[in-house]
This record gives sequence, C-alpha cells and structure tokens, in this order.
Amino acid sequence: MSKANLFYAQSGGVTAVINASACGVIETARRHNDQIGTVYAGLNGIIGALREELIDTGKESAATIAALRHTPSGAFGSCRYKLKSLEDNRAEYQRLMDVFRAHNIRYFLYNGGGDSQDTANKVSMLSLKEGFPITCIGIPKTVDNDLPVTDNCPGFGSVAKYVAVSIREAGLDVASMCESSTKVFVMEVMGRHAGWIAGAAGLAAEQEGDAPHIILFPEIAFDKPAFLRRVRDCVNRYGFCAIVVSEGAHYANGQFLADAGGKDAFGHTQLGGVAPFLANMIKQELGYKYHWAVADYLQRAARHIASATDVEQAYAVGKAAVEFALAGKNAVMPTIVRKPGDRYEWEIGEVALADVANVEKPMPREFITEDGFNITEQARQYFTPLIAGEDYPPYKNGLPQYARLKGELADKKLPAWDQS
Amino acid sequence: MSKANLFYAQSGGVTAVINASACGVIETARRHNDQIGTVYAGLNGIIGALREELIDTGKESAATIAALRHTPSGAFGSCRYKLKSLEDNRAEYQRLMDVFRAHNIRYFLYNGGGDSQDTANKVSMLSLKEGFPITCIGIPKTVDNDLPVTDNCPGFGSVAKYVAVSIREAGLDVASMCESSTKVFVMEVMGRHAGWIAGAAGLAAEQEGDAPHIILFPEIAFDKPAFLRRVRDCVNRYGFCAIVVSEGAHYANGQFLADAGGKDAFGHTQLGGVAPFLANMIKQELGYKYHWAVADYLQRAARHIASATDVEQAYAVGKAAVEFALAGKNAVMPTIVRKPGDRYEWEIGEVALADVANVEKPMPREFITEDGFNITEQARQYFTPLIAGEDYPPYKNGLPQYARLKGELADKKLPAWDQS
Repeated sequence: MSKANLFYAQSGGVTAVINASACGVIETARRHNDQIGTVYAGLNGIIGALREELIDTGKESAATIAALRHTPSGAFGSCRYKLKSLEDNRAEYQRLMDVFRAHNIRYFLYNGGGDSQDTANKVSMLSLKEGFPITCIGIPKTVDNDLPVTDNCPGFGSVAKYVAVSIREAGLDVASMCESSTKVFVMEVMGRHAGWIAGAAGLAAEQEGDAPHIILFPEIAFDKPAFLRRVRDCVNRYGFCAIVVSEGAHYANGQFLADAGGKDAFGHTQLGGVAPFLANMIKQELGYKYHWAVADYLQRAARHIASATDVEQAYAVGKAAVEFALAGKNAVMPTIVRKPGDRYEWEIGEVALADVANVEKPMPREFITEDGFNITEQARQYFTPLIAGEDYPPYKNGLPQYARLKGELADKKLPAWDQS
Repeated sequence: MSKANLFYAQSGGVTAVINASACGVIETARRHNDQIGTVYAGLNGIIGALREELIDTGKESAATIAALRHTPSGAFGSCRYKLKSLEDNRAEYQRLMDVFRAHNIRYFLYNGGGDSQDTANKVSMLSLKEGFPITCIGIPKTVDNDLPVTDNCPGFGSVAKYVAVSIREAGLDVASMCESSTKVFVMEVMGRHAGWIAGAAGLAAEQEGDAPHIILFPEIAFDKPAFLRRVRDCVNRYGFCAIVVSEGAHYANGQFLADAGGKDAFGHTQLGGVAPFLANMIKQELGYKYHWAVADYLQRAARHIASATDVEQAYAVGKAAVEFALAGKNAVMPTIVRKPGDRYEWEIGEVALADVANVEKPMPREFITEDGFNITEQARQYFTPLIAGEDYPPYKNGLPQYARLKGELADKKLPAWDQS
C-alpha cells in the first residue's frame, strides 16, 4: 500500500498566523515523507473536501511554503460551513469518507475553533465505524481566544498586539488635538461574546492618563450613566478620552449596543457599528467633538505587526499536530501550556477534541476592574507575553511580500458532490 | 544682546512623522547653539504662543529629542486654530509679536499645511513693519499631500504605506472567506478634497485580481450604476471585491456620499461614514455579504508602519528650515524636489510662503484610469518611492516605545492673553 496522505483544512474566520500553522504542518510532513505522502489542503476549507477540490501542496516550492509563515489570511481559502450533526446529514460525512478513501487520506488536520474541533472529533469516530480509520488532529485557531483548556489561541496574540499598538498611536493623536478639536476617540474591536481582544488593548496604557481610558467588554452590561460620567471625567482630567469597545458590548437585557440605533430614513437598520453609535451618544449627551474607527478585518489580517510569540506558537501547533498523528494519537488537539514561574515560558500540551468541542471560554471576571471599565494587573500579566516580539514580513517596494500559491488541484476521482 | 531664540509650532491634523520634523529642527538648532538660544515649542501649536505657554525644549534630554523621530502625533500638541486676517484681528498678531519680543524669539518655524504657511507669511510681513523682524520659515506637513510646489508632503508617505498595506492584508482575508461568507470589503480612507491617499492604496494591487479592485476618488463624481456593475463584475470574476473609498467621495452635484444616508430614528444625521453607506448600498442592490472598516486616526498615527522615505524627508525639512533661517532666508518653506531619472532621488528645494499659502494641489486626472476606478502606471511611479523602506520604532513588552516629554513651560513674562 502506498504511503497515506494528509488532508489539512482551514476553518472559520482567518487570522494573521493561521498560515504559520499551515507552514508548520506542511514543513513537518515533508520532513516525514517516509511516512506521509502528499499533503492536500482543502480549497476553501472543508468545502474543498466535499467538492473534491484538493490543493496539492506538493506542487508548491519550499520557498512558497516557508513564506506561509509570514502570510496572513487563509492561503488555501477558509469557509464558514459547519457540518450538520451525523444524524441530520450523514451523507455529508459519508462524502468526506469517500473523498478521503479515494485519495488515500488517513490523516485529517483541521485548523479552526470549537466548531471545527467538534467536526474533527465526529469524523474520527465515524471513520472507525466505517472501517477506514482516519487520524483526526485539531489545530487551534481563533482571534477570539475563547477555546478552553489551551492557555491561549494562536491568532489572538497578533490581533491583541494590533489593537494595543493602534490605540496607543491613535491615543497620542487625540492627545495632541484635544485642546482645540477632537476630545473623544472610540475604537471598535472584534469579540462578539468575549472581551479578550478589547482587554488586550488595555496594555497600551502604562501610565496615568494613557489611552485607552475606558474599555467596554461583552462581559459587563453597559451602564450608560456611569459610562458618560467616566467619559466626562477623563476629558476633564486628561483633556481627552480614548475608548475601546468590543463589538459585543450590550445592555443588561442582552441587546447589542450596535443594534440599538434604530432605523435610518429608509427603514434600514442603522449602518454603523457600535463605535459610531457610542461616539454619537457622547456628542448628544456631552457635546464633545469625536472621531471613531472600526478596524474590522484590518485587525485580524495585520500580519505586518504580528506578535512573534503568536507566530511561533501558530507554527508549533501545526508541527505538533503532524507529530501527534505520527505518534499514533487521535482525536486530540495540541494546546499552549503556560509554565509556572515569573518568566513566560510555554510548551505544547494536548487535549481530547471532545473536551474542547463547542465550549467557549469567557474572560475571567478578575481580569476586569471592579468598575468594569478597565483591565486588572492579573490581566496584564496574562496578556503581555502574548504580544511580545516582532516578526516582520519581508518587504519589496514598500509593501509586505506575501506567499502566492499555485494552488494546483489534484485530479478528481469521484463524481461531483450532490448537495441536494 | 543674548542669542536669539526659536519658536516652533505644530499645526492642524497631526501625522506619523511630524515629530521627526520637530526632531530635525531641535537637533539642528542644538548643533548651532552659537547662533540659536532656546528652542521653544508652542503647547498646542500657535495657541501656545498666544497664551505664552512655551515648552522649553532645552529641558528635554538628547535621547528624548532623538525619540521624537520615531514618535507619531504632535508631541507638543497641535491645534485647529487659524489666525484671522490681519484686518479682522490685528490684536492676535500683535500678541504674537509681544510674546516673541518678551522671549527674544527671532525665528518662527511653523509646521503645517497651507493655512499655516499663510500665517507664517503674514507674521513675517508684520514683524518687518513692527521693527522686530522675525525670520519665518514654513515646514511642510500634511497627510493629504495637497501642498503645491513640493513633490510630496511629509506625512503622506506613511499614511500611503499604511493604507496600501492594510488593503493588501484585508484583501487576502476577504479572498479566503469569499466562497462561503464575505464577498465585499469596503475600506474608508482620509482625503476630503483630494484622492492622494485613496490612490496610494492602489499600490497594493500588483496582479490581476489583487485588492483593491475599485477606488473611489473625490476627483471623480460617483456613478452608482457604473459602480454597482463593477462590483458585480469583480465578484463574478475574482470571487470578491475590495473597495477603497475616499471620505470625500461625492455625487456629481457635490453631495458627499457620507452625507447621503439621511437621518436615523432619532432624527440624527446618519452616524456611519461612507464605508458603511456603500457597503449597505451593495447589500441592498446586489445582496452580497459585506464587511467594512474605517481606519480614521489609525492611518495617520500609524508610526509602526511608517515609510522610511517619509521619515527621512520629514526630518530633512525640519533640519533645512533651521539651516534656511541661519542662512538669512525668510518667508520660505523647504520642499521635496524629485530629481529626474529612473531611480528615485530627492533633494531639498525652497519656495516662497506666498506661493504655497492656501493653494491646494488635487491629484492629476492622468493618475486616475479613464473609467475612474483605479490608478494609472504614472500614479504608481509617483507613489511607489514615497512608501519605500521601513523605519520601525523600538519596542518594549511588545509595544512601540514613544517619546514622553517633560513639557516644562518657560516662565511667563506677560499678562494673560485676553481673547475677548
């Protein structure tokens, strides 16, 4: 029998370092080419497996694969596509099995969040029943940092660094303008359910008066009077107020602030996000001139300011996933384990997929100050090492040079996938 | 008579490199301490002169002054404050004269855009009449790149680099998600009257299909049907469409797109900027899932990704301003002169303040493709060298370390300024 092949897929929202994990997978698999044949990557994630659109990474040069380490986004394409439960759509799982069998794929490495780990776990179980056992290894990825067990998630450290750098820089801008112009700046960051990203922005403040002055977390119900008092207090004290708000900030009744603005003249839901909503509230209630920013994809794609720690860890979990598979492990995910001690050190651990599937880790309450508007010293100690170090991509003509794949697909061996 | 002192002020919206000009001024003045006494910087720009709030930069260490070179925003404070005409408010000019006289200030270096050069020019003329001649030198600064005569403005190259890097990175993000999720991404950039910044974002596209696919300029009236056709065409051809829009994009009748969204449920003017407006238009008309970003101050404060060329030029115009003053020049501004030839080389030139005051330089029509949606090869040749080179600030604990000034004020010698 020919050597078994490996299938790798990227899942869900991409990050600045998910390709570093891909790089770790492919480079490690190539070093073990006595045991692993071809590494296929799903074109657009798991959809690529269902459609039998398998990128043959063997066609990519070593230099291109190495460049994945400094390339943001999902180089093979990702997708928002969650397999239904086995009961609801067994055909989908069957199709995966068929494609894997047709291409002699015995290793399935799925790079994503909680949903993806759930899927990988199910594929593992089904493959055993089917008598075509697939080694399924999860690779953690999410800017939201909300996977359980692992100390942190690859992808988070870089977005954390981006938001902290950005609010530090924009804060200096507002500080220099506030005497005669803008007094309030609101920056909206990602995090629909957990305030990890918003919290990390708090690292920018090192001395009294530094931006950000206020952070709004999804973990804390929005208290309008207390918020407005705090804004006024900051402007009186420091001349300006810099605010970081999580997109998931909400009222006590659960309604998102971003949804609270009503309809526009055409009856459409308010276009703006939570940043313009808050800025306008401040203008209405306190009269301050404002600016606001919504970084959106810029924050999670910002490979140019990635955390070196994050890049190393992203690569390491990709490498570990291949090593786990070769060591005969199955239905597990490598984790980042923080070693005890004052100096930050980490190592790779492991967890069963069943224990991370569909579990969200909120930010601990003790990471947020009692008034709900800032982060504690404990949070700083957690966040700081995750944004440490710079890992700049190469530049040409003033712009970062990111990998361009050939993306050649393997020949199809099966009929087209019938999605009906 | 004691050595004459120098007054330096920052004016208008700040940039990632205006402090590099301040660094050039102060370091050069210190090297000529046989001719120049104290360098005072206006606290919050020209307002500091009127209020006699003069930061004594002599109290700052050489290391702090050197750190200004890599510190964004206006370290001494800037302001949006335009002196009225001499006829309308002679008292204001008189006050400036009084403060300058009281502190033996014989050099006035004003770091700003067209308005500021106009003010510097007026002060120069008035000081001659008053018999207390002040050497007035302008120092160019504006992210908008709209000053005439000079080939480009310090501040522009860095925001240009930021927007090009950002749309390249976000474009890769959308490309990887578009099969099953976001198909359209809209990034709003600065430039109320000129499309220089939006145009520079076009550098990110180097091959067919690269982001950005569409750029909307203030120089081209918005044509909704043509725009929507282009968006659909991009999605059909590339799977996604990445759009850069200048905040100054407008309809043929001059109305800004950002102002066109009507009122919200409370009767307030639409909160969002032009990015959410366009994204919503595309959703309504074409049904595509979208994301949008408004970088706002993040783009002009982004010292972490500054252009090395821009930093060098910003320093050079500050240095040249002092050298001009010492050479007996007056009422002039150093410019950046692009030398002829294929390889980019530049040198410092000069222009009379009267020739740059209140003149705006729009982007040439030949920089924009005939269809109005992109930049030409000629534009690329102009923009490319301006974003060349990286000039990273020092980092500590994962964050850029920016200068913190003591900001000690000189003792006041005059009664408080009566603004009435």
